[in-house]
Amino acid sequence: MAARSGEFELIARHFAPIAQSDPAALSLKDDAAVFSPPAGHEVVVTTDALVADVHFRSIDEPELIAKKVLRVNLSDLAAMGARPGGVVLSSGYNRDLSDDWVARFAKGFGEDCAAYDVSLWGGDTVATPGPTFFSLTAFGYVPMGRALRRDLAKPGDVLAVTGTLGDAALGLALLNGEFPDLAPDLAEFLKDRYWLPQPRMTESAACIASKQRLAAMDISDGLAGDCRKICSASGVGLVINRDAVPLSKAARAVLDGDEDQWSRILAGGDDYELLIAGSPDDVAALGDAFTVIGGVTDEVGVVSLIGTDGKMAELADGGFDHFK
Amino acid sequence: MAARSGEFELIARHFAPIAQSDPAALSLKDDAAVFSPPAGHEVVVTTDALVADVHFRSIDEPELIAKKVLRVNLSDLAAMGARPGGVVLSSGYNRDLSDDWVARFAKGFGEDCAAYDVSLWGGDTVATPGPTFFSLTAFGYVPMGRALRRDLAKPGDVLAVTGTLGDAALGLALLNGEFPDLAPDLAEFLKDRYWLPQPRMTESAACIASKQRLAAMDISDGLAGDCRKICSASGVGLVINRDAVPLSKAARAVLDGDEDQWSRILAGGDDYELLIAGSPDDVAALGDAFTVIGGVTDEVGVVSLIGTDGKMAELADGGFDHFK
Repeated sequence: MAARSGEFELIARHFAPIAQSDPAALSLKDDAAVFSPPAGHEVVVTTDALVADVHFRSIDEPELIAKKVLRVNLSDLAAMGARPGGVVLSSGYNRDLSDDWVARFAKGFGEDCAAYDVSLWGGDTVATPGPTFFSLTAFGYVPMGRALRRDLAKPGDVLAVTGTLGDAALGLALLNGEFPDLAPDLAEFLKDRYWLPQPRMTESAACIASKQRLAAMDISDGLAGDCRKICSASGVGLVINRDAVPLSKAARAVLDGDEDQWSRILAGGDDYELLIAGSPDDVAALGDAFTVIGGVTDEVGVVSLIGTDGKMAELADGGFDHFK
Repeated sequence: MAARSGEFELIARHFAPIAQSDPAALSLKDDAAVFSPPAGHEVVVTTDALVADVHFRSIDEPELIAKKVLRVNLSDLAAMGARPGGVVLSSGYNRDLSDDWVARFAKGFGEDCAAYDVSLWGGDTVATPGPTFFSLTAFGYVPMGRALRRDLAKPGDVLAVTGTLGDAALGLALLNGEFPDLAPDLAEFLKDRYWLPQPRMTESAACIASKQRLAAMDISDGLAGDCRKICSASGVGLVINRDAVPLSKAARAVLDGDEDQWSRILAGGDDYELLIAGSPDDVAALGDAFTVIGGVTDEVGVVSLIGTDGKMAELADGGFDHFK
């Protein structure tokens, strides 16, 4: 810790200003924070741990890392239909990190707390001889008994997603040296999609406002693996139409001439888009923010992918095996 | 991760059984847990991160490490007067840890969840190339507006603590090879005090039940440093009578002939006892569980220690400088 200030000074200097606006945080001076859900609402809680060079690139900008730490948790709240309340942040800073790094991390974190109207309610800051890690726990509020869940999909439902898929996985590949010939503006777009997930708070709120039965989750580990979780929780099967999967202009450019990138798009992860299942009418009523990519079947646990040629293949966790 | 199962299998096998009794956890299958505080209560939230060989000894029994991870957080809830509800656990397991280690950790964690009537509501499990770490976030409930806080001490109050101080710090020193001649039963006692903190849930509940103005915190970093936090939050000073500090038989045996161990007892940390300030009558009414060790003054920020000879010294964070 020679290069850095003590824990309490660090918290006071960098993080207390972020926390000062919310009485729940008790100005980060106490052992804990105190809060209440609004009347008629329950508390949704989610936690995610991120380790340097496992879940984020330690060479990336600290401001961007901070924003991603917050946003991946907000995406989990969105998956439950919760609007954000506050967060507590456990930080394990590698001993050799500079004060400047921590200051920039705190700056990015504060900017996004403001952008998403989230309060920092407390946390714990420790030093570690190993890789820097963060564990964020986020709290949100959802109308009593109305949280979106994974176990509500039924045969006959359609399956739909927000945004475009695969951009973040392609962005990471690009940061690691792939696709050197991609146009600069498309390359920037993909990198941004990796660095800055867009938690779908608005679309999530629309799902809650619709008051319909909807199964939901966020896609964090790739569509191929994550959609199995809805299958498993709901006891259903899924058919996904590959041609219906929404793609960005940049992803289309990468795919052009390199069909193998479909595996990365379907299984690469870091999308942080919402995946929902509901009746065709209910999903259509949610409007353009959701793109229908397939349907729910009664073949329990079977996830199939329909290709461009109309043929069907089992969708494996790692993408798809082959088209029959 | 070659030596171990995948994240989801690991969670399902070792941790899901702990979570199954509580509907809030959604069987650990969803992105998040959902809960509500009981009517008339607020939610208290606290988080602590622990890193192997920084905050716990990686060579210790995994069951004991698990219990300590839980108990240090319960102690933070006790400091706020909250009774435990649930916890979420982020685990970063070193890649070379065995399945058996994780299974034993989960076993110890489950035993203590049952012992303290706490539910595991969820978490995140990742692999790390660095030291194993845990970040636990604990939730408790406190009657609305009645959380114990650090900023309520007033001049004229007495200062009191639960249990005995210094045992854990001496236990750690003993584990590191000191006090080889201490009687085996006393040595065992000190080691247990290091391994297994006793969060003071009953005493905390008594503070809440008294409905009196009480400042409170738990002593985790040593009395000397921690009591400054009450000074700072409440804008007061403190006088501590060293002879009144409650000591175990084992601590007395260590001190016998080695007065320098006072520094460790007053500043060593890991006590997880409650420190409260309140009017003499209110504290007396709490009964024998609390021992008065000093009083609150209006000398803002000054913490003094009265020695055996009646002389007074400034109490430094690291113990005491000298007696004038």
